[in-house]
Amino acid sequence: MTVAAHPATAPADSASPAELYAEIQQFYARQMQLLDDGEAEAWAETFAEDGVFAANAHPEPFTGRAAIAAGARKATDDFAARGIRRRHWLGMLVLEPKDEHTVFVRSYAQVLETPRAGQAVLRASTTCADLLVRRDGHWLVLDRRIHRDDLD
Amino acid sequence: MTVAAHPATAPADSASPAELYAEIQQFYARQMQLLDDGEAEAWAETFAEDGVFAANAHPEPFTGRAAIAAGARKATDDFAARGIRRRHWLGMLVLEPKDEHTVFVRSYAQVLETPRAGQAVLRASTTCADLLVRRDGHWLVLDRRIHRDDLD
Amino acid sequence: MTVAAHPATAPADSASPAELYAEIQQFYARQMQLLDDGEAEAWAETFAEDGVFAANAHPEPFTGRAAIAAGARKATDDFAARGIRRRHWLGMLVLEPKDEHTVFVRSYAQVLETPRAGQAVLRASTTCADLLVRRDGHWLVLDRRIHRDDLD
Repeated sequence: MTVAAHPATAPADSASPAELYAEIQQFYARQMQLLDDGEAEAWAETFAEDGVFAANAHPEPFTGRAAIAAGARKATDDFAARGIRRRHWLGMLVLEPKDEHTVFVRSYAQVLETPRAGQAVLRASTTCADLLVRRDGHWLVLDRRIHRDDLD
Repeated sequence: MTVAAHPATAPADSASPAELYAEIQQFYARQMQLLDDGEAEAWAETFAEDGVFAANAHPEPFTGRAAIAAGARKATDDFAARGIRRRHWLGMLVLEPKDEHTVFVRSYAQVLETPRAGQAVLRASTTCADLLVRRDGHWLVLDRRIHRDDLD
Repeated sequence: MTVAAHPATAPADSASPAELYAEIQQFYARQMQLLDDGEAEAWAETFAEDGVFAANAHPEPFTGRAAIAAGARKATDDFAARGIRRRHWLGMLVLEPKDEHTVFVRSYAQVLETPRAGQAVLRASTTCADLLVRRDGHWLVLDRRIHRDDLD
């Protein structure tokens, strides 16, 4: 095998680049399914206790898991009351491992919305810049910055 | 390496989580390309002989490969006659291996449609719940349940 | 483990199917992020010096890295002047390794466009047929053929 294309991604005692890629892509899949299924509190558990969620669509970042959960719960309840199903697609991941337990990931996200008995629409296109940390064997978001393409 | 985030995914004599992820993601890519290329019968071969395809958009499930092929052939011919190209994107896979030869996968799907000389549109957002089985070295769909987000 | 579903993808002295999949998917993620970030020249560096970029939306292919860079620079500047952010999603990859350093990949692509302060839209659905080569440890596009679904 060759890993020459990813010289920084395989410290000797760590996951291979392929293992890391599969772990992180599935971390995101689980995380987004939780949010879209309305499990706001379980979704917030995928952030570090001291995690930060910042977005150029929000005036202030959410800091700490409790604040992140409260923000997600409010949004989740609002969409449910309006009969709108959201789906967050996150893809085009570029991984930059920092050390064995820290990886920076820049990715794209699509937010799809489907009203009950209505037409699915692409609501927003964004980038997502995440600092992920592995604690007790679980990946968690330490810092997330969402940039919606329509906003400065 | 650590696989603590996927404790159930690596029985000692089986594929690693990364190998399984790459196999399944590519299984879906091949499967959807067959369908979108109009190869309805070859697409049906990716289901088990006794496979089931159920969808909340259909009054009854299709049961058995022959019925699945016939349903796909009819839809394929209808879209071709209307000059519409479909593309099925399946992503955000969450894998839950049941044993060495069985894996449950919950994923999202987008259905894109492009009319000849017209504008591509997002037709539908769905979830896909699949029970996949490995028989003679090939992954097959034993049970698929598609849930369109606009329908109950 | 079994690799029976990918009999051609694991020559003994080469990357495993999972390693190859992770490398190629991330190659595409980096490549598309460069283009969408306006780094037309850096994007062109992901093509072989003698690479070809053909599309059914273009009257003639771009041949050679300089021509590919010039074409991308022009498009990039045009979109920037119009205040439109593009995002290229490439997914549903089917890999067909030809030898240890050459792989054919057929995939799907979505082109999203978001005007400043405006609504994101799906601009086009395409297929992408790539011949990738590994030179000096880096994957490069030797030949790319883009087929937009709305055009013959």
